Amino acid sequence: MGIIVVNTKAYWEGIGKNAVELAKIMEKIGREYGVEMAIAVQPCDVYRVANEVEIDVFSQHIDAIEYGSYTGWILPHAVKEAGARGTLINHSEHRIKVEDIFAAAKIAAEVGLKRVICASVVEVARAVACFMPEYVAIEPPELIGGDISVTKAKPEVVSESVEAVKKINEKVKVLCGAGIKSGEDVAKAIELGAEGILVASGVVKAKDKEKVLAEMAEAMVK
Amino acid sequence: MGIIVVNTKAYWEGIGKNAVELAKIMEKIGREYGVEMAIAVQPCDVYRVANEVEIDVFSQHIDAIEYGSYTGWILPHAVKEAGARGTLINHSEHRIKVEDIFAAAKIAAEVGLKRVICASVVEVARAVACFMPEYVAIEPPELIGGDISVTKAKPEVVSESVEAVKKINEKVKVLCGAGIKSGEDVAKAIELGAEGILVASGVVKAKDKEKVLAEMAEAMVK
Amino acid sequence: MGIIVVNTKAYWEGIGKNAVELAKIMEKIGREYGVEMAIAVQPCDVYRVANEVEIDVFSQHIDAIEYGSYTGWILPHAVKEAGARGTLINHSEHRIKVEDIFAAAKIAAEVGLKRVICASVVEVARAVACFMPEYVAIEPPELIGGDISVTKAKPEVVSESVEAVKKINEKVKVLCGAGIKSGEDVAKAIELGAEGILVASGVVKAKDKEKVLAEMAEAMVK
Amino acid sequence: MGIIVVNTKAYWEGIGKNAVELAKIMEKIGREYGVEMAIAVQPCDVYRVANEVEIDVFSQHIDAIEYGSYTGWILPHAVKEAGARGTLINHSEHRIKVEDIFAAAKIAAEVGLKRVICASVVEVARAVACFMPEYVAIEPPELIGGDISVTKAKPEVVSESVEAVKKINEKVKVLCGAGIKSGEDVAKAIELGAEGILVASGVVKAKDKEKVLAEMAEAMVK
Repeated sequence: MGIIVVNTKAYWEGIGKNAVELAKIMEKIGREYGVEMAIAVQPCDVYRVANEVEIDVFSQHIDAIEYGSYTGWILPHAVKEAGARGTLINHSEHRIKVEDIFAAAKIAAEVGLKRVICASVVEVARAVACFMPEYVAIEPPELIGGDISVTKAKPEVVSESVEAVKKINEKVKVLCGAGIKSGEDVAKAIELGAEGILVASGVVKAKDKEKVLAEMAEAMVK
Repeated sequence: MGIIVVNTKAYWEGIGKNAVELAKIMEKIGREYGVEMAIAVQPCDVYRVANEVEIDVFSQHIDAIEYGSYTGWILPHAVKEAGARGTLINHSEHRIKVEDIFAAAKIAAEVGLKRVICASVVEVARAVACFMPEYVAIEPPELIGGDISVTKAKPEVVSESVEAVKKINEKVKVLCGAGIKSGEDVAKAIELGAEGILVASGVVKAKDKEKVLAEMAEAMVK
Repeated sequence: MGIIVVNTKAYWEGIGKNAVELAKIMEKIGREYGVEMAIAVQPCDVYRVANEVEIDVFSQHIDAIEYGSYTGWILPHAVKEAGARGTLINHSEHRIKVEDIFAAAKIAAEVGLKRVICASVVEVARAVACFMPEYVAIEPPELIGGDISVTKAKPEVVSESVEAVKKINEKVKVLCGAGIKSGEDVAKAIELGAEGILVASGVVKAKDKEKVLAEMAEAMVK
Repeated sequence: MGIIVVNTKAYWEGIGKNAVELAKIMEKIGREYGVEMAIAVQPCDVYRVANEVEIDVFSQHIDAIEYGSYTGWILPHAVKEAGARGTLINHSEHRIKVEDIFAAAKIAAEVGLKRVICASVVEVARAVACFMPEYVAIEPPELIGGDISVTKAKPEVVSESVEAVKKINEKVKVLCGAGIKSGEDVAKAIELGAEGILVASGVVKAKDKEKVLAEMAEAMVK
């Protein structure tokens, strides 16, 4: 069964009370369709959102740090205590050094945060799969936020990533993202071997968020 | 009247419920002595702490971004909505580009966050004063977290920073930090022209936080 | 008397033997018009170009490091030994932390490299002037590489930068850049108080480099 | 047959004319023992050194850029034209984003530069092997510049890296580094499966560079 991860970025529609509202819609649709949902929010919204819903709340980022003198960096232990159950790592808008991906993934596992490591191309998807995260999300940056879904524009990137990642470790699941806007896009993603999607504007900036989410959830369980 | 800004960094003693506890002690002492207090916490603790105390809660960092596609970066508008009333900028453990200091300071002012811009040396204190923040905090990095206070080791750095900053703009207040651990250090800081202190381990890792804070607050109002 | 600093960036027209060729044209025109010329090249071209011309060769960047374990960072002492007489610092395509600007400027002075510190806005120009470089170059990033010169689009940015910088220190000279393409642009820059220009594509990508440089040099000495 | 790659970092002993001198010693020893030698120098020393010796000159770093507006970043095409035949990528003192490692490795291949991608741990060695460089260099950062060789302190890191990398692609060779100071260290490295070494202070700061290099070369061909 697939997962829908919604990344609220720094969108007005996904901050503070808007994030709470969106999380509640996701929770409702998730229950209705029996689809796993996770919302990745700004670090300062983790506590607030996690107190209002039962779906997984993810941090949009963590830094590869332990307790100590790291003013203003995102401490995995702190987002965990705030209620996060997972985190994005190396999002295309927040790329980090390869050694930091490895270290962040390790620390996240130690504190009990699920990891979604993002990658731009098949080779990077394969490389980060070596760090054994729960998920690798393949998102060609040039398609992020655009009108054409990765599943239409570059379906082979999804299927080849699935193949490359599974060769490294069968347990690592591949999500796909970039331009995902409809149930059709989700259905195609699943067909290509993805076990979920990472979506942002397609949901967060949709006029009717509930409708889009329902459509996507429906496609996921078909 | 001076201000005491406590930076909890990523210290175990300053995360989550520990941050709330510390903030409550600060609130109590602040009221007792009539001293302004602010606690600078991890972004993910802003909401939680701000809901529990009336003293100012600061973010330890903000990024120079507006609403938009900035996954995992700290949106000033988001920490403001979470309850922050101010922010550190350019802390020695989180240096940023000069253009980003300018932009972050500008955006913070627009959303209504007080700014504490940190600097390592007199020349940088003077430079960042050009961005007209409420506070410039001078902290020689080699003394941060150490046992000797900046007011003892390099008193001239404090007094020269005050002079340099006031020449740029009379309204910008100078805080001093690094190694501040006692009422005596605070008294000396005020004597050197500082209008407050930025302190971390000296309070957060103190065995008796209340006692240290009381001693510092007393020195501030003498 | 003004200076013309040509930044070859990573343009094909400004690399290796092309850089040497351009430097020779600059040298010729500089002599003809009695105008000071400097060419800012890729670090790996400093030695080659400096051995072929007598005009100043600048590095496009230096890092704030001393001799030591800094693999792949640009050592000021090394570019100096390679023949550089100056360096750009904080170019809009290579922004650095404010503390690093201060440190790089200090080290550059110690090894004998002239400094051109770049800034995007008046406030930053004023701030970096506090580090007492030989030059501050004001370049609104949105105009860099474009068709409209800063002197036309935002003349007040130039004149206000000159005013702000001179208040910090009379000796710091202001260069202006972004969209500079003609003798007319140079004349206007001088009229606005600039004591030279920082130019890239306007010269490096010009069809007739010699003609453009002659026109600019002529405007400089009028 | 193994390779000895000497990284001169930003050491005084490895800059400018000292780099040339060292390269000549390497060339001499390389010929004597029939061992492949490469010297990785500061970008601004590539041209000078490459004109004086026939051994491979590497850049200590390249940035993941093509021709264009990238002031002060290290253009692969420029170091190639300057005479480089290879480059280090992601050295422990110069870590870069995973996407940039991939892109830099790709561009380097296109312009004809051999790639040595560095890694701190077995997992990262395996990950970067996915980008199919000529070499992966495994160097535990805590041992770099120290007195105990990786081959003594953590031999399993070398052998496991060889195993992990070869599983990704048989053709990728593993170098080992950190604390390598003697022929004995080199012999052990080869025994553990390494096909060469990456060494810095052990050679560059040796009192008798020729003697150390000869000892290392001898161990390599045994």
